[in-house]
Amino acid sequence: MSRPGLILKLSCPDQPGIVAKIAGYVAGHRGNLLEFNQFSDPIGSKFFARLEIATADLDVDPQDFIDGFGTLGRSLRAHWHFRRLPYKMRTAVLVTKTDHCLQEILWRTGLGELPVEITSVIGNRPHCQPIAQHANIPFHLIQMDGDQRLPGFQQIRNLIDQQNVELVVLARFMQILPDDFCNAYAGRIINIHHSFLPAFIGANPYQQAYQRGVKLIGATCHYVTADLDAGPIIDQEVERVQHFHSPADLSRLGRHCERAALARGIRYHVHDRTLIDGHRAIVFPD
Amino acid sequence: MSRPGLILKLSCPDQPGIVAKIAGYVAGHRGNLLEFNQFSDPIGSKFFARLEIATADLDVDPQDFIDGFGTLGRSLRAHWHFRRLPYKMRTAVLVTKTDHCLQEILWRTGLGELPVEITSVIGNRPHCQPIAQHANIPFHLIQMDGDQRLPGFQQIRNLIDQQNVELVVLARFMQILPDDFCNAYAGRIINIHHSFLPAFIGANPYQQAYQRGVKLIGATCHYVTADLDAGPIIDQEVERVQHFHSPADLSRLGRHCERAALARGIRYHVHDRTLIDGHRAIVFPD
Amino acid sequence: MSRPGLILKLSCPDQPGIVAKIAGYVAGHRGNLLEFNQFSDPIGSKFFARLEIATADLDVDPQDFIDGFGTLGRSLRAHWHFRRLPYKMRTAVLVTKTDHCLQEILWRTGLGELPVEITSVIGNRPHCQPIAQHANIPFHLIQMDGDQRLPGFQQIRNLIDQQNVELVVLARFMQILPDDFCNAYAGRIINIHHSFLPAFIGANPYQQAYQRGVKLIGATCHYVTADLDAGPIIDQEVERVQHFHSPADLSRLGRHCERAALARGIRYHVHDRTLIDGHRAIVFPD
Amino acid sequence: MSRPGLILKLSCPDQPGIVAKIAGYVAGHRGNLLEFNQFSDPIGSKFFARLEIATADLDVDPQDFIDGFGTLGRSLRAHWHFRRLPYKMRTAVLVTKTDHCLQEILWRTGLGELPVEITSVIGNRPHCQPIAQHANIPFHLIQMDGDQRLPGFQQIRNLIDQQNVELVVLARFMQILPDDFCNAYAGRIINIHHSFLPAFIGANPYQQAYQRGVKLIGATCHYVTADLDAGPIIDQEVERVQHFHSPADLSRLGRHCERAALARGIRYHVHDRTLIDGHRAIVFPD
Repeated sequence: MSRPGLILKLSCPDQPGIVAKIAGYVAGHRGNLLEFNQFSDPIGSKFFARLEIATADLDVDPQDFIDGFGTLGRSLRAHWHFRRLPYKMRTAVLVTKTDHCLQEILWRTGLGELPVEITSVIGNRPHCQPIAQHANIPFHLIQMDGDQRLPGFQQIRNLIDQQNVELVVLARFMQILPDDFCNAYAGRIINIHHSFLPAFIGANPYQQAYQRGVKLIGATCHYVTADLDAGPIIDQEVERVQHFHSPADLSRLGRHCERAALARGIRYHVHDRTLIDGHRAIVFPD
Repeated sequence: MSRPGLILKLSCPDQPGIVAKIAGYVAGHRGNLLEFNQFSDPIGSKFFARLEIATADLDVDPQDFIDGFGTLGRSLRAHWHFRRLPYKMRTAVLVTKTDHCLQEILWRTGLGELPVEITSVIGNRPHCQPIAQHANIPFHLIQMDGDQRLPGFQQIRNLIDQQNVELVVLARFMQILPDDFCNAYAGRIINIHHSFLPAFIGANPYQQAYQRGVKLIGATCHYVTADLDAGPIIDQEVERVQHFHSPADLSRLGRHCERAALARGIRYHVHDRTLIDGHRAIVFPD
Repeated sequence: MSRPGLILKLSCPDQPGIVAKIAGYVAGHRGNLLEFNQFSDPIGSKFFARLEIATADLDVDPQDFIDGFGTLGRSLRAHWHFRRLPYKMRTAVLVTKTDHCLQEILWRTGLGELPVEITSVIGNRPHCQPIAQHANIPFHLIQMDGDQRLPGFQQIRNLIDQQNVELVVLARFMQILPDDFCNAYAGRIINIHHSFLPAFIGANPYQQAYQRGVKLIGATCHYVTADLDAGPIIDQEVERVQHFHSPADLSRLGRHCERAALARGIRYHVHDRTLIDGHRAIVFPD
Repeated sequence: MSRPGLILKLSCPDQPGIVAKIAGYVAGHRGNLLEFNQFSDPIGSKFFARLEIATADLDVDPQDFIDGFGTLGRSLRAHWHFRRLPYKMRTAVLVTKTDHCLQEILWRTGLGELPVEITSVIGNRPHCQPIAQHANIPFHLIQMDGDQRLPGFQQIRNLIDQQNVELVVLARFMQILPDDFCNAYAGRIINIHHSFLPAFIGANPYQQAYQRGVKLIGATCHYVTADLDAGPIIDQEVERVQHFHSPADLSRLGRHCERAALARGIRYHVHDRTLIDGHRAIVFPD
């Protein structure tokens, strides 16, 4: 949405009348609801919603509209979040050697598919530097081998904090994040794992897939938590394979899955189309 | 939904505040909104919605609730429809020789996946009679060859009307319906076409697909209109094929697509998850 | 293939000239090669092939042709197997309560998609008895609860042996086979597991999938080995799911995957399109 | 394949013994068959094959091996073609404004997925010039508007001929090729069409798809013939869409299909995995 507007994400205990109250608040101030997605989870008795609101005709200032919602939000015992549109999310991309996921992000950002502003590309290897430079994005090489691992992560945290980064994308970043890193940016780190999780957690999933003789390979885009490869899944993609595909072939075919799943996952996140509910992610795709 | 409830389908010109008004009406009478899907079409400036409402706590009788909605509906210049749950839609299945689509419908109905009551199986050939009989469903053999075509269709209309049929499913029924038949039951006839429409309209699509050398075959479930194979599409399914697949192989692989697309299409229709908008169908899948 | 013919499956250590020798033998006796699939595995240095041979013009009796191949086979240090066509494989189907996989097998067998002769349906619950009876197939109810488990498996083995069963299909059979059973019929037991293995091994995979919040569910058709759900995979199928799908929905959507993967897996096996290589299956699909 | 070798593509009237003769020739000169794909078309009574042969142990020079095959080839009344490996196919990419297909080709070429050498990028608009320049590939801007159309095509032919181009890729090139151009390079021009052909031939397929309300969009990679969008199909890709996707959304989602189908199509062509048979393409995928 390029015109001025708001996105509201909200979750709260389920009860009758929530939609009426929220939509009533919006309409009462002449907001125009462009899109309304909701999910009443019968198992968890929770309510989740995402609203996209055109604000051109609001009878108050958008900030006043946002502030005034608090009374309703608290009465619903809700967690909620407003985003003012148009918006570009400040995003850092972490890489190692492999560049296809970085390239995909750059390409889709250039096309306007991903409303992000890439503040920096951070690598523990220099391989992706030329790509970042060609895109006029600062590249930071961080030493992370051996003893330098934890200091390296501290450097990354410093960079992220200095640059007001809101989203960290692990674009085939071959390092396991320390728990405190995961916790400090909970819900704001997205990883692409090169298997259809929960199959083939950890290292070398394509080699594992080859040895297991699967007939499908895949990729999973998920939020990062301290529990390796177990964070909420945003999207997954698979591709058929056959016995004649070597591990190198699986890697080649899998790259296509990785790019697709990661691009969709980032898009859903930056468009506020995801809500995290424990180990699961509510996703309203577009 | 097995507990008492209502489904409301509605379409109207788009304007701000519709969701608030509808949800407000529901909440005002202590209806509990279990599911709310809406679509504000920016191109056609129309609003479409489907609501699933638990009615156990309504402060009025459900019929009173339905009747009372009329004032709001008219003020929105809406078309709307309520369905009381639980519900089984009275359905006639039209067949010729091929039985896999009929079998799929019977099987899914037996499993509770399709809330339909099959009033009759109507065939212009006797091949499916044993299957209908085994399922204890009346089978009607209608002569439709040559001069008997139009009288045959009249017989079918008579049967449908006598049995209060609400949905007619063409389950590989190899006859083109007369225009007056299509118009008389507009939005209530579902066909499965054995190609990914609009490719391969008309007869022998698998033979056409073979000759064209496509690498994907498919099936399309759509509402029937007087314009052959051009009615609103509810769902489609495809399968990869290769050069070594003969027309008979395409037919075999395609059966799987046909069963899947038809079963989903019927399910969406009988759950009131479809709204027809000219040549297009709004579908809120489950 | 309905005309008289032979299928030859063969595996041996790889070396130059194998294709020439095998095809030379066939051509030398005026066999007509209708289909020739081979795979030279560069990782394992093994050679695998499947040949479909029309025998109408053979210059010797087919049995003579088969016997004469032994000299070449032994010189290649090969394992090989000839099947005379047309052929129907004697198959026992093991079930518990759920019937959709059994129904699919019966339906596809009836259509001629699966060249099997179902000798019996064997259940540890009576639920599938009516379906077997309607298809005129003997149904054997075997008590397997508690202490009766191992004697029950012995009864099944007796039945299988008496009926000269060549293929055992576990069509959602909810019992773990004893190791000696697996070993006695190695490469002749096919299972359908209701997840995309190796994800969600063991019980209740749809419940596990729900809790993990995956965006894809699936089914895996594989050969049974003593290692639970770890046998060679023949085929897999997946379907997209969303957050609003309950475990019951996953079960419903998964049934479609199970039917598809199992039907293809059986078809490939009975057409001799599979070769087992350790944990992996070579599959030449049709 | 990076080691020295040969690829042989061949088609001929079908008859018994072809495989034995060809494989016999290879083995007789100590060629090592790495991969052998064949297709005996029962409908057209034609035989098609592709062989990948390691030549390290040949008992003659590879050129001698190639020349010597002629006697056998002629006796089979075959069309055949040898390619010496390793090989990079000289390729010209034709573009207009849209760059995603060009980018995909460059990216995959860089990764080694596509064994091509891009001789030039030729555009009737300047938009893709910076991308070509960044990749150090000559960019040629050709005026093709109005009266300049036919002279423009002549310029392109001159460029192609001067640069010894073997493959012309239309990477979203928005001009219909003159018949003489199509005929001059028959079997050597690959196009990506942004629909699942034969649906939505011609201009604006995404707009057409939106208006038809399809639930699947796609892309088709095919050889170009004088008959618009009717050449032999190499590969196709589809993606599910819903009612809320605008034509711009279809365009966005479709780009992903286009990139995938085009990349596979080029790969199959340059690896000699395609054989054209009238309106159809035999494709042996890897």
